[in-house]
Amino acid sequence: MRFSRFLVHTTKETPSEATLPSHIYLIRGGFIQSVGGSGLYNFLPLGKKVLDRVERVVKEELDRAGCQEVSLSFVTPASLWQESGRFEKYGKELLRFKDRKENDFILGPTHEEMMVALVRQSVKSYKQLPLNLYQINLKFRDELRPRFGLMRGREFLMKDGYSFHTSIEDMQREFALMETTYKKIFTRLGLDFRVVEADSGAIGGSGSKEFMVLADSGEDTIVVCDGCEYGANIEAAVRRERACEAEAPEAAFAKFYTPDVKTIDELSAFFKVDPYYLVKTVAMRALYDEGRSEVVLFALRGSDELQEVKACNAVDANDLIEITEEELQEIGLVPGFMGPRVVPDGVRVVLDETLKEASSMICGSNEKDYHLVGVDLKDAKTEYFDLVAVQEGDLCAHCGRLLRYTKGIEVGHIFQLGTRYSDPLGCNFLDENGKSVPMVMGTYGIGVSRLLAAIIEQHHDDSGCIWTKESAPFDRIWSNKRFVDADPAAYTVFAA
Amino acid sequence: MRFSRFLVHTTKETPSEATLPSHIYLIRGGFIQSVGGSGLYNFLPLGKKVLDRVERVVKEELDRAGCQEVSLSFVTPASLWQESGRFEKYGKELLRFKDRKENDFILGPTHEEMMVALVRQSVKSYKQLPLNLYQINLKFRDELRPRFGLMRGREFLMKDGYSFHTSIEDMQREFALMETTYKKIFTRLGLDFRVVEADSGAIGGSGSKEFMVLADSGEDTIVVCDGCEYGANIEAAVRRERACEAEAPEAAFAKFYTPDVKTIDELSAFFKVDPYYLVKTVAMRALYDEGRSEVVLFALRGSDELQEVKACNAVDANDLIEITEEELQEIGLVPGFMGPRVVPDGVRVVLDETLKEASSMICGSNEKDYHLVGVDLKDAKTEYFDLVAVQEGDLCAHCGRLLRYTKGIEVGHIFQLGTRYSDPLGCNFLDENGKSVPMVMGTYGIGVSRLLAAIIEQHHDDSGCIWTKESAPFDRIWSNKRFVDADPAAYTVFAA
Repeated sequence: MRFSRFLVHTTKETPSEATLPSHIYLIRGGFIQSVGGSGLYNFLPLGKKVLDRVERVVKEELDRAGCQEVSLSFVTPASLWQESGRFEKYGKELLRFKDRKENDFILGPTHEEMMVALVRQSVKSYKQLPLNLYQINLKFRDELRPRFGLMRGREFLMKDGYSFHTSIEDMQREFALMETTYKKIFTRLGLDFRVVEADSGAIGGSGSKEFMVLADSGEDTIVVCDGCEYGANIEAAVRRERACEAEAPEAAFAKFYTPDVKTIDELSAFFKVDPYYLVKTVAMRALYDEGRSEVVLFALRGSDELQEVKACNAVDANDLIEITEEELQEIGLVPGFMGPRVVPDGVRVVLDETLKEASSMICGSNEKDYHLVGVDLKDAKTEYFDLVAVQEGDLCAHCGRLLRYTKGIEVGHIFQLGTRYSDPLGCNFLDENGKSVPMVMGTYGIGVSRLLAAIIEQHHDDSGCIWTKESAPFDRIWSNKRFVDADPAAYTVFAA
Repeated sequence: MRFSRFLVHTTKETPSEATLPSHIYLIRGGFIQSVGGSGLYNFLPLGKKVLDRVERVVKEELDRAGCQEVSLSFVTPASLWQESGRFEKYGKELLRFKDRKENDFILGPTHEEMMVALVRQSVKSYKQLPLNLYQINLKFRDELRPRFGLMRGREFLMKDGYSFHTSIEDMQREFALMETTYKKIFTRLGLDFRVVEADSGAIGGSGSKEFMVLADSGEDTIVVCDGCEYGANIEAAVRRERACEAEAPEAAFAKFYTPDVKTIDELSAFFKVDPYYLVKTVAMRALYDEGRSEVVLFALRGSDELQEVKACNAVDANDLIEITEEELQEIGLVPGFMGPRVVPDGVRVVLDETLKEASSMICGSNEKDYHLVGVDLKDAKTEYFDLVAVQEGDLCAHCGRLLRYTKGIEVGHIFQLGTRYSDPLGCNFLDENGKSVPMVMGTYGIGVSRLLAAIIEQHHDDSGCIWTKESAPFDRIWSNKRFVDADPAAYTVFAA
């Protein structure tokens, strides 16, 4: 087709709500078009070509890795979500609707339930495993604030894959294969990215990795090491344990009058002690299913900050919320003087793991204007978890070099899922002994339409989009009466 | 990938609701899977491969014809449907839902409004026309009775294309190009099909053609000529005007006492006259917008049958419904003795065009037990339309050979749309004189997922599916230690 007949609708107007380069340039360059400003987008011919090329790279590498493509119904029956428990648990992002017969349906935001239902019908024996099925299909999430163009739209294109195994070991083998495959995909797409350890929620373990395209505009803060490959989401980052050069305060266990001395800084100045030896105690209300909740005191060193996602996972809660001073006082806790030693009935205590061997500490007494000194936490009969937020300047747990913060755009997420869905949905297989056991699952996602935005966040100049070789809409262009290799920067003209 | 690792879930059980071969074999052969029996389907790896191959043929031929692919949001804002008037008019098949902010949205069953909204934003000048944009994307129709597997599901894959022009002539050129392109597509897919004239509703003219795959199980009755290419939907079929060998009755105009002689047969026997010379009068209530309705008498020769879709289009109504005897009597019409000559006030009369030159006819007098003879309809000041249903044995209007009925599955529909959407939605362009005029549109659809069912309806044996060359999931198979061309019948084993 002659380029003159190709629909390229460029515009000089920047959409008022657009702040990110990708949002501005994809619209101005005629790649996408907003539908009523509600997080819905049309792909124009140029955008569709880029989308197809990106999709092709994803598909080729997955097929090469032995994955099999399927296509699941986008509209999904609510009954499956009731089986898994997510019909109630999932928030308002789950778009529910009724059909003409008043049956409940859901526009799939993710397809674990559907894929498990597919497999439990089709696979019965260990001989049919392992199996890795994927689709590249529409998803819908009813975001409260759709924004940033393709970065956080409501309808989007996603590659979602799910693998099924006879054992955790085999699932972990596939998980590693998917990590390699994802690296190939993002490398072919010309992206500068990091694989980072991610928060794996209540499942715990190191079972979740995210693929982050490095870009200043990224929504996620990630911790990276310049000395080695290590990278992690801020919610999952770990560090080498801090040492403290200052000496520990020497004092026998005692209650100390500390009038109006409330903050770590005040306490450090009052006792002339390094915050490392002070205990910071943060009270939060942890929310669970069916409206249940409890008050938890999270205690860590005064030199550290609490990482709330880690704290939430530690108590296996759905969410943590703040508690007002009035509420605290009703329970019998005194803001500014809280501590983990002796607490009112019904209050749960969780300690950071760096306090496991801590002695000679200073902490609140749960009594107004008093702190305890010479506290030994070794004998605290309580739970220890990693609760700290890694800071820039902390040291890498792997190589000891400095860690720093950077910004990333999440374009992929791989997850060791275990039996979280296969168990409640009854996705079982007969093992070699004829015993019926739930399949062990992994799940693997790539934000296909988001990749277009991520590429442009990393590759643009003042004139607009610069596509990478494998994502460019055209390989060759007609110039000076012959075809020449297209300079990816050639596409910047579309935004001029 | 080794075939032994490929997920093929065959089953010997026939789904209870399945009656058509394609429904039975696509499920038994492991191509698709029903999702909760509600007209939703998952494509398993084998089905997805076939779907991709079919999609590829469609895409290749459209691209070759100069069409440009886009991808429109599946979720569409209700505001666009309000602009076009279809939010109210479209029945319950239009799935409406509210998002978390209580805004109305629609799961697109077709995308005229969306595509017009895309183009009115992107195209301003005659220099940018013509333009033919298409997508291959999901559609949702909340069918009252989803059935026949992929034939009439609720969520399905469709190719929908829309062209935009400066004139009717240019639109008709594109319409012809699309007809040629569709023929190439269905020929490549190995289908025995007919292009048939279709009912084009209120727009009229010969502006609509359907592509029918010939199969005994087809839902549509089509009229075909064995002598030439002519084919038409039963609602649109025309024939060579019938002649009558019997002589016309000779009688002066008179009112005749015909006690209890009501039917055409009785009348023919009573007067010893061929039904050709009798007038059959059918009363219907025509329904219009906003609850308006009127009584219409449709009159045709006694030897003919009324085609209700033709009748409905003749009076430009939304629907025709029957009238009870009581209602007729209230209006002043007498069942069995109705005629088009003198009618009560407010009753509309529409004559079949074969009555235009009719004289010496016999018809009801609108008075109990009396008919009129020697009626001359030449001077009837009324409207003439083609109202007759073509019968098997009628003669082809083009070549004079016999017409016969056959069954077809609609897999494509092309339509001369005109300005039906561009006008209300303000999709205008500036012509060469700088005048703003609405674009002239065509629209072109292919049921992509339905094609899988159509192929199997035409190509199967007792063991299951037989794919055609371009739709087969595999070109070559590994047999006797080497690759050989796959016999399409090889896929029948999947249903064994």
